[in-house]
Amino acid sequence: MFLFYNENGDNMLNIINKKRLGQILTKEEINYVVEKYVSGEIPDYQMSALLMAICINDMTDEETFNLTDAMINSGETLDLSGIQGSIVDKHSTGGVGDKTTLILAPIVASCGVNVCKMSGRGLGHTGGTIDKLESINGFNVNLSIEDAIKEVNKVGAVIVSQTGNLVPADKKIYALRDVSGTVESIPLIASSIMSKKIASGASSIVIDLKVGNGALIKNLEDAKHLSDLMIKIGKKYNRKVVCVLTNMDKPLGTSIGNALEVKEALEFLNGNRNKDLEEIIYKLASLMVSLGKNVSEEIALKEVKEKLNNKEALSKFYEIVKNQGGNIDDLKISNRVFSIKSPYTGFVKEIDTLKLGELSRSIGAGRYKKDDVIDYTVGFVLNKNVGDYVLKDEELVKVYLNKIDLSINDITSCFKIDSELGDVLPNIYGVIK
Amino acid sequence: MFLFYNENGDNMLNIINKKRLGQILTKEEINYVVEKYVSGEIPDYQMSALLMAICINDMTDEETFNLTDAMINSGETLDLSGIQGSIVDKHSTGGVGDKTTLILAPIVASCGVNVCKMSGRGLGHTGGTIDKLESINGFNVNLSIEDAIKEVNKVGAVIVSQTGNLVPADKKIYALRDVSGTVESIPLIASSIMSKKIASGASSIVIDLKVGNGALIKNLEDAKHLSDLMIKIGKKYNRKVVCVLTNMDKPLGTSIGNALEVKEALEFLNGNRNKDLEEIIYKLASLMVSLGKNVSEEIALKEVKEKLNNKEALSKFYEIVKNQGGNIDDLKISNRVFSIKSPYTGFVKEIDTLKLGELSRSIGAGRYKKDDVIDYTVGFVLNKNVGDYVLKDEELVKVYLNKIDLSINDITSCFKIDSELGDVLPNIYGVIK
Repeated sequence: MFLFYNENGDNMLNIINKKRLGQILTKEEINYVVEKYVSGEIPDYQMSALLMAICINDMTDEETFNLTDAMINSGETLDLSGIQGSIVDKHSTGGVGDKTTLILAPIVASCGVNVCKMSGRGLGHTGGTIDKLESINGFNVNLSIEDAIKEVNKVGAVIVSQTGNLVPADKKIYALRDVSGTVESIPLIASSIMSKKIASGASSIVIDLKVGNGALIKNLEDAKHLSDLMIKIGKKYNRKVVCVLTNMDKPLGTSIGNALEVKEALEFLNGNRNKDLEEIIYKLASLMVSLGKNVSEEIALKEVKEKLNNKEALSKFYEIVKNQGGNIDDLKISNRVFSIKSPYTGFVKEIDTLKLGELSRSIGAGRYKKDDVIDYTVGFVLNKNVGDYVLKDEELVKVYLNKIDLSINDITSCFKIDSELGDVLPNIYGVIK
Repeated sequence: MFLFYNENGDNMLNIINKKRLGQILTKEEINYVVEKYVSGEIPDYQMSALLMAICINDMTDEETFNLTDAMINSGETLDLSGIQGSIVDKHSTGGVGDKTTLILAPIVASCGVNVCKMSGRGLGHTGGTIDKLESINGFNVNLSIEDAIKEVNKVGAVIVSQTGNLVPADKKIYALRDVSGTVESIPLIASSIMSKKIASGASSIVIDLKVGNGALIKNLEDAKHLSDLMIKIGKKYNRKVVCVLTNMDKPLGTSIGNALEVKEALEFLNGNRNKDLEEIIYKLASLMVSLGKNVSEEIALKEVKEKLNNKEALSKFYEIVKNQGGNIDDLKISNRVFSIKSPYTGFVKEIDTLKLGELSRSIGAGRYKKDDVIDYTVGFVLNKNVGDYVLKDEELVKVYLNKIDLSINDITSCFKIDSELGDVLPNIYGVIK
């Protein structure tokens, strides 16, 4: 039984041992870890051991600030000073059926607030905005930052893929957390989100923090803790951060799947609005406009409704799509459609949202490995969501399949149907600023 | 932010997440981890994350039994039924200057109790018995188990290198723990030691559990917990386990370094005995003989002293060395010797034993990497140990150097000399059976 010691490894081993014993890491130690992990000098097996010690023994606010700072400094930061007027950024912690960015960008831009949004691709059971946009034939998400700024100045909004040079530390650490069981740590989540948001340059950030069985954060206590921490990090960098805690115990809106979600966004802007989605969009959009124009939320909400009702937001959507080279008339959705009927009469009491997200991935709407090719044409459209009453043999959900099949049981088992409804959770749990 | 999920990885990720949350792993889950890690299907970065979660969130006794069992089942187990008479095994958790095996094997064998000892090489700051024996020209540690059994039946004792097929899981897990900051976990230490001892076949095992600044276990509380756990594991396999908790806040005996320790062992058997070493040898030897012959410790101790005084133990040592091909007359010790003087007058209050072990490694007595070549001729011989009074400019320690040099300051800084001695710790803290 020996204590290992060598010239290269001892610093990292000391750091791991400190965190294993629940001690506080210094700024220098955190910088060392981030720098040497990005450069490849610290191996994955040491980093995952440290990440696990952080997951269990936690980090102080000071450590989280230092980690965020080290991650920001690992790459480039964007200079958005070339954009005329105010810019508001938005982030979602990820959910099933979350097409809010597609709807918010045109609404907020039509209200005169700039949106320069870096989005990601889907990797787990939740889809990514970039994948959804790429279901639109010709849509170009790979703009240089100079071109993105030009687009914002022209139409008020752009949605582009994250550049490789922005927070490379987060990219590498996040990929390792994903495969080492170290995802669920509040300081690690907070520093991951905030390092990217701060490096992407916006001065105000609205965060849609999903809470529930389809989200990373399962309970309100963790959601509040995470919100507080992100707001504190924002303050350190002079960024206004507002967190909206929203319900992810059910899919958001009616559709899950790439082209299907673009279609739902389009219908929403055209006046055909799912009520749950509408409530969340009103809240997020009015917060973004309120921050961007420095007006009250009431005034902002009035303007948001106006731009929706007079179809200016819809026109802005077409403008953004056209501007980034997309052809929205060519949206392809599979025509192999199956209607799944309810086996019982009763209330839809629960939906296993995580499982439904996984099923949509299994039919091709998402990836298992980074280089998997997405089938944009497949997915689900819910006819019933949590709280709805359903009759036996009435449609629960439409399934759009293409090359990969699915068992009916797998789908119906996601729905818990009961004679009594019980408590219904709100769509929005609260706003933390 | 996504929860990762894939067909191959999900089982291990579920297991990591369970332990991260402090839950208890099932026998099936532990078997899965050990089997798939040995086969290479579970990558190091997942295993180190799990090991860290175990270090922090601990394991129940049941989990530790299951882990030990899975490790034993990962390879071969030895059948020592070919040995006539009783066999007692001995294990040390590793210390600086620990040459007890070299002394115990001939004493115990000369008392008529068989010793079939698998020993290891040094890797950290502590030396390995096998390296010490290889400082004897010609000594062959690589015997097959059949040949080892023949030797035991012929001379009563054999000391051989661990075979590759014995507990391969421990070999692989231990190497990872060494470099991922996950060494210090009582269930991991207990299962590592006990899986090897049980697989090597002896029915009675005496464990010399080193406690102090030069050992893995730093305090008595942990030592007691570890002892209890190893005794419980032993019971499960019908093995008698006795733990002796000994002081490793100072080097054991006078010499540190391979040939120097063989020389000290030889001198000990020849009647020139360091008092600290003698006390520990008497205790370990009498326990081994008492277990092997089923007599009281008092009777056993009497016999041990007799075999030492009448030099039968010394003859047995020569016999073992000759039998394994060694030429003890050819023991080489460097003649580049430096006498390090005390900078002060006073009591040697403390010795930084870990650092002294590291220094002996730095001059060539140990390895940094597995394929480093050891310089058997170098090391230290202490003239003063903890508790001794030393005059200014009196010799503290002799340093035997060869190709690599050392600064005097590095050596003297290991010794804390004070005008008052304070409490002196015992050599043996206690015996737990």
